[in-house]
Amino acid sequence: MKRILAHISYDGSGFRGYQKQLNARTVQEEVERALAKLHKAEKWQAVSSGRTDTGVHALRQPLHFDSPLHIPEERWPMALNSLLPKDIHVHTCREVDPSFHARYDASGKEYLYRMTTGEEHSVFKRHYEHQLRKTPDQERMQQAADFMLGTHDFSSLSSPRTSVVDKVRTMYAVDVLQDTSSWTLRFVGSGFLYQMVRVMTGTLLEVGFGAREPESIPAIIRQEERAAAGKTAPGHGLYLSQVFYEEEALKAHLASIRKS
Amino acid sequence: MKRILAHISYDGSGFRGYQKQLNARTVQEEVERALAKLHKAEKWQAVSSGRTDTGVHALRQPLHFDSPLHIPEERWPMALNSLLPKDIHVHTCREVDPSFHARYDASGKEYLYRMTTGEEHSVFKRHYEHQLRKTPDQERMQQAADFMLGTHDFSSLSSPRTSVVDKVRTMYAVDVLQDTSSWTLRFVGSGFLYQMVRVMTGTLLEVGFGAREPESIPAIIRQEERAAAGKTAPGHGLYLSQVFYEEEALKAHLASIRKS
Repeated sequence: MKRILAHISYDGSGFRGYQKQLNARTVQEEVERALAKLHKAEKWQAVSSGRTDTGVHALRQPLHFDSPLHIPEERWPMALNSLLPKDIHVHTCREVDPSFHARYDASGKEYLYRMTTGEEHSVFKRHYEHQLRKTPDQERMQQAADFMLGTHDFSSLSSPRTSVVDKVRTMYAVDVLQDTSSWTLRFVGSGFLYQMVRVMTGTLLEVGFGAREPESIPAIIRQEERAAAGKTAPGHGLYLSQVFYEEEALKAHLASIRKS
Repeated sequence: MKRILAHISYDGSGFRGYQKQLNARTVQEEVERALAKLHKAEKWQAVSSGRTDTGVHALRQPLHFDSPLHIPEERWPMALNSLLPKDIHVHTCREVDPSFHARYDASGKEYLYRMTTGEEHSVFKRHYEHQLRKTPDQERMQQAADFMLGTHDFSSLSSPRTSVVDKVRTMYAVDVLQDTSSWTLRFVGSGFLYQMVRVMTGTLLEVGFGAREPESIPAIIRQEERAAAGKTAPGHGLYLSQVFYEEEALKAHLASIRKS
């Protein structure tokens, strides 16, 4: 058996999130179905770096699976893409050590949250960007974002609907990037709790619209209580963009975004 | 009764084209259903500037309908949008003369065809751009496009599956615009036949990839035979972008695109 690490992208608008569940179309179900077909088996397991929520997209999500097939690395994407639906795409596959684990070995992740502000409603963006009529204050949002950096218990800034107990995570970068009407919020951290990026985004937006002060963030975090923070921003603006397994790759990425 | 001219956009990926038909979701059906609901009637007629094919999008498609309701012009979009599905949006409505006709009065139309070349496949563009692995030659395509300008019988460059007899149309602009990997083909003409933009695009691509010469276009047109031209490009890259009713508006638009 070889262990294969695949990087996939998907358009989350047709899925009830990544994780398999009864009576709902999920990314995991489609990926495992393709793997089962390829292996002529009834089922086949894929282990992802993590889950995504309903409507959330992935630009590069890693997952691993084991296979006895003798397919060269560079042929794997084509073999899988021919069996996958059009809203999932395998970009790369490579053989990794059998001890590699796509979830447990992740040392950092990057999420992007995309918004458009002050523009007329676009039907073409409805699944891909959070469209806001008004334009928030970028500087205030970045000031608030800076208070989220570092190591904190993120209970206030994530959903309580989780079985995860340890809610301490480290944020390496929270950048509020605006290019006229197009916004990207970039979050790089050691890991992310359930709905954490969406709660952080919703809270930053409330600061940007003047409903909260940037300086209120430390107190919100200290309360360790979801009710202290802002609304959960909609899932369709959110993209899992990268997962880091090597400390070096994470550092290089942080250095590159700090330069630009 | 007032006659209202509405401008709508729609994401064509969820529709079997504009025109109503049995057992298929169409834009016309959804628009007329919303109008019927608003008027508390069983059905209500909308007359569009024309049809679009399966998967084809509209940025601004005009349509007219009659109404006895006393709704101020600026309130119409909201009233209709609240009854329409999320993939159709009404941008503006205004009262027009009862003699106005959205189809018969059109004196010109603009279509855009969007492509991406030489990039990795993107799941996010699959409904919105024609994704090509290789990059065609822009100069050759523009040379070929120039031969399509003017007044011709476009039988060769449109589908024969039509009841339209007069196939003479005038092309005012056929521009092949490239911005690195992002392409927009712009077609402005007096009118367009069934699948005409898609056949023109497919033929231009064959020139761009070297399978035909730019100078072959006049002979293709003269044959007045669909088989003489290239393949039909896929519908999902195509956008109806504007319809002109006033000669002046069309002239101003042509002047503005010639300047840029």
